Order: sequence, then C-alpha cells, then structure tokens
Amino acid sequence: MKLALAQVNPTVGDLAGNRRLVEESIHRAREARAELVVFPEMVLTGYPPMDLLHREGFVKDQLRELETLAKASQGITVVLGAVLSEENLRPKGLQNAGVVFSDGKMIGTRAKSLLPTYDVFDERRYFAAGEKREPLHVPALNAHLGLAICEDTWTPHVEYQIDPVSELAAAGATHIINPSASPWHAGKPLQRREMLCQIASDHALPLIFVNQVGGNDELLFDGGSFVSDERGRVIATLPLFESAFSVVDLAQPEMSALPLEVEEPHRIAQLESGLVLGIRDYFLKQNLPPGAVIGLSGGIDSAVTAHLAVEALGTDRVTGVAMPGPFSSDHSVDDAFALAHNLGIEIRKVNVSPLYEAYLEIFANLFGDQDDYGLTQQNIQSRIRGAVLMAVSNQENRLVLATGNKSELSVGYCTLYGDTVGGLAVLGDVYKRDVYGLARHANLKTERIPIGTIDKPPSAELAPDQFDHNDLPNYDLIDQTLEQLIEGERNLETLETPEGSQREASLNVARRLDRNEYKRRQSPLVLRTSPKAFGTGRRMPIVHRYP
Amino acid sequence: MKLALAQVNPTVGDLAGNRRLVEESIHRAREARAELVVFPEMVLTGYPPMDLLHREGFVKDQLRELETLAKASQGITVVLGAVLSEENLRPKGLQNAGVVFSDGKMIGTRAKSLLPTYDVFDERRYFAAGEKREPLHVPALNAHLGLAICEDTWTPHVEYQIDPVSELAAAGATHIINPSASPWHAGKPLQRREMLCQIASDHALPLIFVNQVGGNDELLFDGGSFVSDERGRVIATLPLFESAFSVVDLAQPEMSALPLEVEEPHRIAQLESGLVLGIRDYFLKQNLPPGAVIGLSGGIDSAVTAHLAVEALGTDRVTGVAMPGPFSSDHSVDDAFALAHNLGIEIRKVNVSPLYEAYLEIFANLFGDQDDYGLTQQNIQSRIRGAVLMAVSNQENRLVLATGNKSELSVGYCTLYGDTVGGLAVLGDVYKRDVYGLARHANLKTERIPIGTIDKPPSAELAPDQFDHNDLPNYDLIDQTLEQLIEGERNLETLETPEGSQREASLNVARRLDRNEYKRRQSPLVLRTSPKAFGTGRRMPIVHRYP
Repeated sequence: MKLALAQVNPTVGDLAGNRRLVEESIHRAREARAELVVFPEMVLTGYPPMDLLHREGFVKDQLRELETLAKASQGITVVLGAVLSEENLRPKGLQNAGVVFSDGKMIGTRAKSLLPTYDVFDERRYFAAGEKREPLHVPALNAHLGLAICEDTWTPHVEYQIDPVSELAAAGATHIINPSASPWHAGKPLQRREMLCQIASDHALPLIFVNQVGGNDELLFDGGSFVSDERGRVIATLPLFESAFSVVDLAQPEMSALPLEVEEPHRIAQLESGLVLGIRDYFLKQNLPPGAVIGLSGGIDSAVTAHLAVEALGTDRVTGVAMPGPFSSDHSVDDAFALAHNLGIEIRKVNVSPLYEAYLEIFANLFGDQDDYGLTQQNIQSRIRGAVLMAVSNQENRLVLATGNKSELSVGYCTLYGDTVGGLAVLGDVYKRDVYGLARHANLKTERIPIGTIDKPPSAELAPDQFDHNDLPNYDLIDQTLEQLIEGERNLETLETPEGSQREASLNVARRLDRNEYKRRQSPLVLRTSPKAFGTGRRMPIVHRYP
Repeated sequence: MKLALAQVNPTVGDLAGNRRLVEESIHRAREARAELVVFPEMVLTGYPPMDLLHREGFVKDQLRELETLAKASQGITVVLGAVLSEENLRPKGLQNAGVVFSDGKMIGTRAKSLLPTYDVFDERRYFAAGEKREPLHVPALNAHLGLAICEDTWTPHVEYQIDPVSELAAAGATHIINPSASPWHAGKPLQRREMLCQIASDHALPLIFVNQVGGNDELLFDGGSFVSDERGRVIATLPLFESAFSVVDLAQPEMSALPLEVEEPHRIAQLESGLVLGIRDYFLKQNLPPGAVIGLSGGIDSAVTAHLAVEALGTDRVTGVAMPGPFSSDHSVDDAFALAHNLGIEIRKVNVSPLYEAYLEIFANLFGDQDDYGLTQQNIQSRIRGAVLMAVSNQENRLVLATGNKSELSVGYCTLYGDTVGGLAVLGDVYKRDVYGLARHANLKTERIPIGTIDKPPSAELAPDQFDHNDLPNYDLIDQTLEQLIEGERNLETLETPEGSQREASLNVARRLDRNEYKRRQSPLVLRTSPKAFGTGRRMPIVHRYP
C-alpha cells in the first residue's frame, strides 16, 4: 500500500483554512499515486480548541467543513481526526473521532476511547468516550484499518484499564492508524517512538503515527510522524518541528524518499527548535502579526530570548531596548549592543534613571525620606522598564517577549509588572542551566551571544553590587530542588537535599515555589518544553497551607 | 433523629487545622445530644485542593488526619467528605468519598459516582468514579444512610446517565445525606434548594445538604445548608456566607432553633455578601494576612471595591491612594476623599503628572516629538498608577485590589499592568449595571458611595474630555451582548443584536471579547459570582481564528 503522511500545522479555530490544508495534502497524495493519506487528530479545529468547543456553531461549522471532504476523497482513502456531535450522549454530546473517507464516500468513524484528563489535557471536559473498538473495512485498500486516536495507543504508559490497540488487533485490524495531537516536551519524540514501535511489534501490525506540528498558545507539537512495520522497525519518518508531507510504500519501504530513521536531536537542539516554532506560530497565527520587542539587559536570559526571536521571526521583526539605570554596570549596555550587532537587530537605548529619580520623590512623599527603600526601589526600576517596553508595544504594534527563566519564575526572583511583562514567556519552562546550554548551542558556528554575557555572574543590577548568588542559592541547587518539586511533585518532607547549610537553602526554594504562585498566575503564556510546565498543566491554589 | 449540621469553612491544604474544625463541631454536636453530625465534601483538604492532590504526601497526610476522627466519634455518628486512596484503581488512584464513623469505628465509605468535569470543575483529572451505590447501615441510628456526594444529586440538572439518588432509594436508604462543596453564584442557593427538595419529595426521603462555606481563591461557597423532609419541605436552614452550626430533630423539626425557611436575599445583597466573604478569606487565609490598598479614582468601580474591602477587612486594614494626573477632573479627587471620609479609611494623594512628564520625554526620544502619543500616553498614566500602588504594596505589605468590572475586562477597556494590577479583581465578574446596583445597595442606610460618584458619567480620565460613552457603546448594550456571548456561549452569527448602528456596536463587543483574552489571562484572580466567570471556568485559546 502506498501511504501518504500529512504532518500539517493547523491554526486553532481556522476551520476553512485548516480544511484547505487538508485538501491540498489530499491533492498532493493523489498526484503521488498514494492510496491512503493520514492526517492528525482534530485537524479541522486545530488542537486544543478548548472552550471554543462549547461556543454555539463551532462544532456545526466544523462538521460542514468535514462534509466537503467526502468529495475530495475521489480515488483515494483519507483518514483524519475530527469532532463529532452525538446529541444523544449525556452529559457530553461530543466525541473526538477518527473519520475515514474513501472514493467520495464516508466509510465510517471511530471515537477515541481514552480521553486524557491530566497535565495539559482536559478531554473529559469536552468529550464522551468511544465504545466501539473494531477496525473499519476499506474495500478500496483491501484493508481493515484499526483507528486508535492519539491517547488510544498510550495504555502502556498511562496504565489505563482498557487497551484499544489490543482490541483492534484481536478484531482483525490489518493496520493501526494513530492520528495524533501529541504535544512535545524535550525527549518526547524518542520516548513516543519507542513505545509505539513496541506496540507495533507486540501485535505484529504496521503502525502509522501522524502528529500535528506547530505551536498553539503554550503547547508545542513536534510532528515527528513515522511508520513502523509489523516488526517494530521504523520504516519512514517525517522531520521534527516543521510541516511535512511524504509518501511511503509499505510493501517497498526502501524505495521511499523518506529516511528510515531520523536521529533524535540532542536535548538542547530540540529545545531551540521547539521554542523557535512556538514563538513563530504565536506571532504568525495572529490575524495581524505583530513585531517583537525585548528588553536587553546584557544578561543571558534576554540574550537567548532575542536569539530565539530572530530565529523565529527574522531580524526585521525584532527590536531590542537597552534600559540602563542607576545600578547598571558599564558592560551591561556594551553587552546588549554587542548582542544586537551579532544578531543584526535594531537596538535603542533609554536611560531610566530620570524616571527612577521621579519615583523616589514620590516615595519620599508617601513613605517618608529614606536612604534606601529596599525591595520597593528595586522593583520600581524593573517596573519602569516594563512600562517603557509596553510603550514601544503600544506605539509600534510589537509584542513584548518576557525573558525570565523557569528557575527565577519558580522562586519568584522577578518583578510582577516589571521583567515579567509581555505576551509570551519564552524561557519560562527552561531551567537556568539550560539557558546556558542554549547560549552555547547558539554560538556553535559563530558568536551570537557575546562571551561576556555567558561568562559574567548573573545579576539583576537593581542595587549596588547585586548578584543572583547573593540573593539566591546557586542555580545548580535551585534547579535540582525544583525538578524534584515540579516534575517530581515531592513535598517538603520527601525532598532530597544536601547536608548542612545547603539543606536550609533547598527548603527555602521549596517554600518560595508555593509562595510565588500568585506571580506565575499573572505571567504571560509559558512555552511548554518539559513534562510539567507552569500553565494549564500545573494547577495550584494560590492561598493554601500545605507544606 | 437529632441531627447536627456543621457548615464549616476549611482552608485548602490546612489538614490539621481543618481536622480541628471537624473535632470542634463533633464536640458541639455531642454536647447538644445530637446523634448524627454531617460535614461538607472533602472537608479535611478544603475544596478545591487542585494539583496539591498530586503532591507526594498530601493524600497520605490527609488520611492520617482522617483516621484520628474515628476516636472522636465516640457516642455519635459522623459523616464527612474525604479523599480516599485506592492504589488498584487505574489510571486514577483517588476517590472523592463520603466517610461514616460511628461510636469510635469507621462504618464504611462511599465514593462519589458523578465527577463534575465542566466549568470550574476538574474532578476527572483527579478521581476515579465510585461504583457502589448502596446505603450504609448505621446500627446506632437504626438508619440506612444514602451517601450522595455533592454532584451525585445533580442528575436532574446535568442530565447524567445514572442517578445515584434513585439507586440509593431503591436500595433502601432511609435518608439522603449530601455532603457538598457547591460553589456559589448569584441565584444558586434558591436553584439548588428547589432542585434538592424536589428530589426529596420524589423519593419520599429526608435529604440533608451540608455545604462548605468560605472563599478559596476565586471560588466562593455560600453554605446555605438545609434539611428537607420527605415531602420536600425545608425544615431547617443555615445562613448563607458564614460558618454555622445547628441541631435539628427530624422527628420534631418545629422544636429546633433553626428557621424553617430563610428568605433568599435579593441578587445584589447576595452579590455584596459573596464578594465580602471572598475578599475576607483571600486575605485572612494567608499565613501573614496583608492589608489592602486601592487606587481611588473618584469613579464608581474603585468606590464599590473600597466599600466591599472595608466590609470584609475593617477600616484599619484598607488604605486608598488618589493619584490625579494631567487629565483628572477636580471632582475626581474630591469624590475620592469624600468616599474615604464616608468609609472611615485612610487616603493619600499622589500627583502623577511629574512622572507622566518624565515618560513623555522618553517617548520623544524613542518615537520622535509628537503632540499626542494616543493610546501609548493614555496607558502610561494607568501604568504609573499601577506602579505607585505596587510600591505601597511592597513597602507596607498591602495587597492591591484591582477595581475593573466584568464589562471592561470583557472588551479590554483596561490597561494591562495599569489598572489591572493587584492580587484580586474584586468586580471582575460583576457587570457594570450591577456595580451601580452594589453602590445603591451600599447607600441604603447612609451615604457610603458619594452621590457624585454614582451620578457622573464614567470616565477613565486619561485624555481631555474622555468619557466611556465616547470610546465604547453604552453599558446596557455591552452587558446584554456580553451575557449572550459569555453566559450564553453564542457566536457572532447567532448573537441577537439591535437593528441599525447598534448592531455594528454589538458585533464589535463580540470581537473585542475574543481579542482581549490575552489581557484576562494575566489578570488577577476574579472572584466568581456568575455561572460563567473569567478564570478556570472559561478556558479560551488566546490565538485562534474562529469568529
């Protein structure tokens, strides 16, 4: 069987636009004499449409687009994911389904049985589970297609009580087709491929995995579609992080143009590609795509953010603003300008000291004359910078990119309405150590991030001789502690800490993590790169008393 | 049977503190010679604990507190809600259950069958559904208690396919016990009582509804616990919006100290009570309760917010800041001071014009010399005020209360990092017309909100002669449009609009609602007062293309 994989990048809610994407790929598949073309899960709505599913007309409008695809399937078989409406199901009237069209007619549908409702997934909020787990016979292919929608293949990982793939195999499926919208985190493509190949080999059936690619708000989808033969060997793969289309002949895979195996890029390279895609799609899927503006402090976070923005949007759409203040070092502005030079982007300079002085007068009036207003006077510098960036945003239709990393955001080492302002927190799910990794990776071919920026000790430069290592434990300890707390969901008692003084520092990180939930709740969208990111995948109360 | 209702106010995660609340009520019940005392759903964790349920140790620690209650039940029967751990359930190992202790022993448990996963509820994220729907025999009471946990009684409303109450009745229950954590919105207490009384009468069984009271983050719980006899007549009720405890004799309800019927307070009075409770608990459940600070513009939103804060926290914990700027009217400062005088709170005045001038110089430098920077110069005034309020917050450990209403927040008539700053958006789920209602209600006995504030046309005062009615359609049209879109989930095509020019205005409101999702995502917590509030109950993509 000649099979086309259509790894497309739908935009949430763009029902007609997504239908056109599907039609174009059907057309290409037919041109390439493919007999079957497979698309991702919920490809007409884009994933995840969230509560748009409840908006009057939304599903009906999607069904209207879906119907037009019957005609488009003349002379070919098409498998895609779509939302079906089943009024008689209670209390949810929708299903997340796979739909098969063949030679101008709808052959049948199969609703997803396993509805993920954990981490970033809310599928039980919207859908009723499918009950039918039998293959669909497609005469034109002389095949019995076993439709397993995304999570339906994940029983080995999540330990569900039913296993749709086993049921499909037992009922005579000749192929497992797995249309998916499986979000990425660093390392997921390999994990997913190994799991699915094991399934193919366990059931001695070829397995076709076609995944959505692209960024939709906080979620990044890597694509990474592939075909496994019935012995669990990958016989064709599509690339990560880009729209892709190709055809493989299941009978003669060696004749296909697709690589048999794609090397899993190493973690940092994956991180870079994922973040670039996330920035690009967040901007370009908006109806009037804005430019980007970034506050360049001379530090590593803003430098890496700017580098990623340039990779995503090009030099013309990115501008930097250096905003030296009363406690800025000389090298901070120099480093910011060196960065802009390396990246080839515009940079402007604004001295914020006069504004700072004006606020100090107001503080004297409000709080009495003091030599040092402590945190208040540190935060105001950050808030002035935030307001200047937002002025550039207002005046020039640019979206501010926030530069804080996951380590800082976790312990609240950031100023709400200051350095946290923006539309997107690019590094908000990247630990400090990986920010360094991204910087070194950016410099592999040529110096993008100035060496001075990488080598100097991190500092917020909001007070004289301020360095992160005076205000915080070292980042190694922070990151090790946070991974246990966030990814590992440990509590204060089960946290593994070093002995001695470092132990108290580690416990303090844990307390700060909870105490700063209110800041994260008002943070811009965080692009998700880990299995547990700040955002919809981690839902914590703000006011609570559990240690 | 003598029955005690314990309408308590647990704090999320305060496992030992909540257990003490339970013990105290058991003690009171025993003193009053009650045979049975009933508590709300998940009373030891508080509701909703959200992802704390996934934190290592959390459920185990709660189970440890639960076990100690067996001993506390000497000589009495206790029914309460708790989280149970069932390792063998897959993929979720937890259940939301009712637990019965009697005379020192655990009699049995019943897991909740209907797990709400809509609006603000995520129970399928955490729990496996209960399968057993048989009453628990309690020899000491000579009764068969039919435990229906919160949603288990809501089949008539949500149209679930199973009806736990019918099954319990068919299996011989003598009483329906309904421990609940049923969040409030205006009008819900009456709706809930009518539904539950109908159930009691349908099954000819007495029904005991005991609800959590208090605010936990955005969710407000009204309590409103009551008992219906087997003919659907309310024979005892507890008050709304406060912790309460009382005893009723089911055989002789007329002998009880409880009112047979509590008048449903009218909508605006309910709104006021709910919001006051929400503010109070948000502040006082924090380990180091902060004071409050509010920017007082002389307008109605900030005036009503200040009034509610004073009702919640007392005059001493609330301070106001008037921040006149270049376009402020004279009456705005006068009205702010009159308000502070009426409420008896401190007020300070800061002239923000010097800061505004300093920013204008920076704008000239960044954008070239212009007479008017349009929206940029409007927003900067709001952001200066936000920064001043945050300085007061930093310096004096006060939490800023944001003052924007639901109408403004919907259409984005607000400045991100400006008037949206704060820890709590008190009126964020209150339409403009109800803000006026709250103001008039506040003035019923004596003038709290200055009449000038109520009578003058609303204005942001960020530009010369600026009035809301020049920038926006009139609020009646806005509110009518928004209710259809938000509560009614209509789309652009099904929206009912007036004829003529008002139609375009209404459609524009709809477009603004979607376009401003990014602002709301960074808004402070909105206290929920309606069936569909901004927050966890409404999950919309930021970037999407559905009309």
